[in-house]
Amino acid sequence: MSFELHSDLKRDGIPMGEFALCHVLLINDATYPWFVLVPKRNNVKDTINLTQKDHEQLWLESRIFSTAIMDIFDGQKLNVAALGNVTPQLHIHHIVRYDNDPAWPGPIWGKHPLKPYSDDATKNILRLLEQADIGGFSTL
Amino acid sequence: MSFELHSDLKRDGIPMGEFALCHVLLINDATYPWFVLVPKRNNVKDTINLTQKDHEQLWLESRIFSTAIMDIFDGQKLNVAALGNVTPQLHIHHIVRYDNDPAWPGPIWGKHPLKPYSDDATKNILRLLEQADIGGFSTL
Repeated sequence: MSFELHSDLKRDGIPMGEFALCHVLLINDATYPWFVLVPKRNNVKDTINLTQKDHEQLWLESRIFSTAIMDIFDGQKLNVAALGNVTPQLHIHHIVRYDNDPAWPGPIWGKHPLKPYSDDATKNILRLLEQADIGGFSTL
Repeated sequence: MSFELHSDLKRDGIPMGEFALCHVLLINDATYPWFVLVPKRNNVKDTINLTQKDHEQLWLESRIFSTAIMDIFDGQKLNVAALGNVTPQLHIHHIVRYDNDPAWPGPIWGKHPLKPYSDDATKNILRLLEQADIGGFSTL
């Protein structure tokens, strides 16, 4: 069975590229540099439902991607979270935080409505990811 | 330099035991089965500040512990998160969720004041962890 993104992730996420295991989406909210990694595996709700090998690969990709976005966006703090109480397809949030962002120091979820990016802003982020030459990651 | 828990974690957490890398604390909030894993490393704010080896060990311990608590508490959903915007010492939340818990389906942080456990309830949880015979984990 081929992998298909959940409709919630299709609605809120802009595809940026992929690793061996995970799709990478930019959440369409210009308030924060906010990405999700989505393992290309069906019927997986929690990180522990992944096989041991996929679990290791997920956190390796998370580490590589996190390091890149903290560098690209000059982040002060990184938030990494697998919640998924609303959207049942496993997705791992990676959010670059600043002490002057609108939700600081709280978590970002449910605080503010999503503020869509302009097309130019989205293209710019895609370009930044491309230029960063992130190991194992291919942009779309 | 020996490792010391941050005062916030000492205040809110009840020590349950440890893995090779992480202390395990029960957050003193009877509303949810809520634990934090705290790597015994100084001056680490984000997961990506850990060495590659420690990062792998963290997520291995997280996987083992998560599997155990989902089983012990018969969880419906697992939330795993490294936030730490308020408490600067790296700690990774592991929360067992139910669709009838007071914060469902939202994240738990900042929703309700902590509801302290009785001493008996705390001891009971410690006993459950002991009985679960969690690989690599020693209770206190």
